[in-house]
Amino acid sequence: MNTKAKGTNAERQLIHMFWKEGWSAMRAAGSGSSRYPCPDILAGNGHRKVAIEVKTCIGENQYFAEEEIAQLQLFSRHFGAEAWVAVRFSEGWFFQPVDDLKRTDKAFVANKKNLKMVGLVFEEFISD
Amino acid sequence: MNTKAKGTNAERQLIHMFWKEGWSAMRAAGSGSSRYPCPDILAGNGHRKVAIEVKTCIGENQYFAEEEIAQLQLFSRHFGAEAWVAVRFSEGWFFQPVDDLKRTDKAFVANKKNLKMVGLVFEEFISD
Repeated sequence: MNTKAKGTNAERQLIHMFWKEGWSAMRAAGSGSSRYPCPDILAGNGHRKVAIEVKTCIGENQYFAEEEIAQLQLFSRHFGAEAWVAVRFSEGWFFQPVDDLKRTDKAFVANKKNLKMVGLVFEEFISD
Repeated sequence: MNTKAKGTNAERQLIHMFWKEGWSAMRAAGSGSSRYPCPDILAGNGHRKVAIEVKTCIGENQYFAEEEIAQLQLFSRHFGAEAWVAVRFSEGWFFQPVDDLKRTDKAFVANKKNLKMVGLVFEEFISD
């Protein structure tokens, strides 16, 4: 499976998880190629709305481009949604607010060891 | 341009109109083919969230399948969004709440003459 297919696969898994818990969730068309900012996934449960950038990671560090994060924040601010990143490691999904990502020189990074300590698992993430 | 391309083109036009007015808006991936319900477009401005089924119509009547409308209502209810249809006639865009669509035997219908009287134009639609 190539990188794009893996990404789509991971997004579909998350969509399924949301619906199973009574949330509505949808994937964006052409995320990453659209002229306007958009998250990979937008989900809501009536009370909360969450815009999510989704990654699958086989290493220790998942990087996010500055532009990617800036666009997620822009979309979320205008829409009225919380901005989150979701990373699927071999151990499962972890969620972190965009504002808590660590900054490197030219990117943002989610470190697996750190994310397993301070990030949320799905059940925590969707609990109000 | 085939029907699908025309639909995508119309959706992109709407996305552009929303961003121009300070709203965030995104198109759904695989709308109509996704396993889960999703609208063609989801847009928000912090206060309002709107889920929209988008059509272009060259005749007098635009039909919506029962299932399409049921899925739009389901998505909107779980997400916490208003459910609308948007129809682009040669005269421009008109917006109507899903609940105001007329019902026929096996579908819902937006009639051009009627929609021009009771529907909203974009500026009205996005005004709070």
